[in-house]
Amino acid sequence: MERANLPLPEEDLGLFADFYELTMAQAFFNQRMFQPATFSLFVRNYPSNRGYLVAAGLRDVLDYLTKLSFSDSSLDYLRTLGAFSGDFLEYLSRLRFTGSVRAIPEGRIFFVNEPPLEVTAPIIEAQLVETFIVNQINLQTLLTTKASRCVWAAPGRVLSDFASRRTQGVDAALKMARCSYIGGFQSTSNVLAAKMYGIPPAGTMAHSFVSSFSTELEAFRAYAQAFPDRAILLLDTYDTAMGARQAVVIAKEMESSGHRLLGVRLDSGDFDSLSRQVREILDEAGLDYVRIVASGGLDEFELEALCKAGAPIDLYGVGTKAGVSADAPWSDMAYKLVCYDGRPVMKLSEDKVSMPGQKQVFRLSNSAGNFREDVIGLQNEAVDQAEPLLAEVMTDGRLCGTHPTLTETRERFESDFAKLDEKHKVLVDPPKYQVSSSDELTRLTAQVRLDLTKGAI
Amino acid sequence: MERANLPLPEEDLGLFADFYELTMAQAFFNQRMFQPATFSLFVRNYPSNRGYLVAAGLRDVLDYLTKLSFSDSSLDYLRTLGAFSGDFLEYLSRLRFTGSVRAIPEGRIFFVNEPPLEVTAPIIEAQLVETFIVNQINLQTLLTTKASRCVWAAPGRVLSDFASRRTQGVDAALKMARCSYIGGFQSTSNVLAAKMYGIPPAGTMAHSFVSSFSTELEAFRAYAQAFPDRAILLLDTYDTAMGARQAVVIAKEMESSGHRLLGVRLDSGDFDSLSRQVREILDEAGLDYVRIVASGGLDEFELEALCKAGAPIDLYGVGTKAGVSADAPWSDMAYKLVCYDGRPVMKLSEDKVSMPGQKQVFRLSNSAGNFREDVIGLQNEAVDQAEPLLAEVMTDGRLCGTHPTLTETRERFESDFAKLDEKHKVLVDPPKYQVSSSDELTRLTAQVRLDLTKGAI
Repeated sequence: MERANLPLPEEDLGLFADFYELTMAQAFFNQRMFQPATFSLFVRNYPSNRGYLVAAGLRDVLDYLTKLSFSDSSLDYLRTLGAFSGDFLEYLSRLRFTGSVRAIPEGRIFFVNEPPLEVTAPIIEAQLVETFIVNQINLQTLLTTKASRCVWAAPGRVLSDFASRRTQGVDAALKMARCSYIGGFQSTSNVLAAKMYGIPPAGTMAHSFVSSFSTELEAFRAYAQAFPDRAILLLDTYDTAMGARQAVVIAKEMESSGHRLLGVRLDSGDFDSLSRQVREILDEAGLDYVRIVASGGLDEFELEALCKAGAPIDLYGVGTKAGVSADAPWSDMAYKLVCYDGRPVMKLSEDKVSMPGQKQVFRLSNSAGNFREDVIGLQNEAVDQAEPLLAEVMTDGRLCGTHPTLTETRERFESDFAKLDEKHKVLVDPPKYQVSSSDELTRLTAQVRLDLTKGAI
Repeated sequence: MERANLPLPEEDLGLFADFYELTMAQAFFNQRMFQPATFSLFVRNYPSNRGYLVAAGLRDVLDYLTKLSFSDSSLDYLRTLGAFSGDFLEYLSRLRFTGSVRAIPEGRIFFVNEPPLEVTAPIIEAQLVETFIVNQINLQTLLTTKASRCVWAAPGRVLSDFASRRTQGVDAALKMARCSYIGGFQSTSNVLAAKMYGIPPAGTMAHSFVSSFSTELEAFRAYAQAFPDRAILLLDTYDTAMGARQAVVIAKEMESSGHRLLGVRLDSGDFDSLSRQVREILDEAGLDYVRIVASGGLDEFELEALCKAGAPIDLYGVGTKAGVSADAPWSDMAYKLVCYDGRPVMKLSEDKVSMPGQKQVFRLSNSAGNFREDVIGLQNEAVDQAEPLLAEVMTDGRLCGTHPTLTETRERFESDFAKLDEKHKVLVDPPKYQVSSSDELTRLTAQVRLDLTKGAI
């Protein structure tokens, strides 16, 4: 089971928040506003070329909510700012998250405007957790979605996460390993992530390994001796075709001692033509079992082109562009108040209107069991023959049940993805999945808007 | 002084590496290859529209190198993989970083192909640290560079980092606060980063604050009572012009109790026209001292447009697009072996050629003290009247001297930036700064290439 691996020391969790969460909390505190509020997380618009989103990040959020508190060191710091009252800081020193969380499980597919998560808690608590929640769910949803596009684009190929060095920070590197595994990758190059999340580690050698030896052949031989059953030789330090011929020499030496070269790796140049050239060199030497790995500059677009062209590449190391979700490095995910003290609320800001009330997402399937359309409704509605996607995962600050394993989450994604029509998976300009609002939600939205605009503000 | 704030627990530092760092280390170990290697970090190509880069991330790298080791838990994990020998794991259990680091100080400007950092250490150590070093310096260089473009685009305006919720993870949020401060921002919304790095925290209120009250006026009043000398009121929850008129009411109430409204914030809509409208409402009410803050969707391009148009906005909250360096979320920063056991080495891979040998960057200035051109040379060269940029910051695994404060780093950036010609700062398609290779480096490169291609491989 995936253990809690918070991206921050526990004692720092309280302060990982935007300053306004705390100034608002002080004002709520002064007004004795401790009533329950519900905040709803959602994405307003699809990031570039996305036709679906994959829920991810909930595990980190639940770990955070379970551990959230303000350490003495944090409180001392807040005191130095001169902005907060003594009784408020005293209140913060006792603060724990006591609310409830309803969420779409990790690995499930969701769509714009659908909340993957709703938090209901005394308003100070529910507001305070905004920064961490958006940070983690936004990132992990983006990365899992990106990874799933890569897997879809390379059917039958093995994908491995090679992104660690160029992700935006250490947390993102670990999350990329986790998210790409949920999305269908088979392994990660990041050893810490492999350990933390129970993902198979993968990796071969760098150019520096080759160039640290006097000759490429010596380098290959040294590596093959160290890893007689898992050696993958990097061919392009000097010249790929020449590297392939040196790899043949080593593979033959390995055969004579009862081993087999596992693979060779290309890391630059035109992968399509080079892979064919290398495949031919290997096959001519009777090394049809040696697999070809490619890495460097790959994303779903490049993968689709190579696979459609029939490039004889068996495994892909997918790095930077997937690890930063380069074509869509952010989404407009937001966390908005939808209910306070039993009163549904919304904002009317230009282009940023929110829908009031606690919600549920209802998924309707066709007779074959595939996804047909979703309906966003109010929490207590029932929609005939529909599956409600949000389930309560935390009540009164305590987890409901146990966390799913990462393998279960991965399987959940695989199962959901199989039920989504292929047209929503195409890499460029997919059509929008049908999502509507229930009559009750539509009515409530109109009513709240009317109340707000008729001068009640 | 900025204290060590590693983005990982100390016990996990050893494993934050690509798996191949460890498999290569096993092979080096088997071959008894413990000689010193030098790796050089550099960026091959400018990210989109960049005309310069700002060095950042060294502090985290030095903290990491100082603390690097393999915990028992890490070694236990590696043992389970069955890929490593017992004597190698024993070696890892004793491993500390014993090498030296030469670097361009944080906050200084550098250009493509110039190494901001070189590591010289026994090859296993020097190789192992690749993943963390590239991860941190790539990210922090991108973020500082991006932030500096925002500051340049908004002369005379105050910029604050509002990016935390949408950065790619928690580490990136903290680093964005740090990097944007180096690049000239004045404050950050992230309270933990403010505490860690000694940056002023900033923030106001969210729409949820306004909508949690029955009326906007009540919300404004409650906030003004809580923060009579630092209140900034958010105007656009329902309608910006109406919000401005409510803010006037509150500002007058504040005046009558001897306080002043600090500002109002716009967070949606057309900032140019809305800010003029709001300025007029405020000025007509005699509130010319109330400042206007804008936030939401801002980057250097938007900032430049607003400032050139003369929008009466005093402060900008800069978030998502800067926090993920949205137009350039990655660079092709690489860490390449340039010397092993006294032998200069290079790779010849297509489009990825590296330059051999330990290097120095020499900066030449004109008579006014402004930057004229740089020369990349070998470490032991002297270039007349040029300032060498790389200095030794770690020797035999120990820090040379003390870390600069973040304020010193910020001032160093400011000083360097003032000496860079404006043409390299333009936001779109800046011309390339003049960087050449010294004769000695050119000669060495040609010689090593010849040795490699004449069949010595």
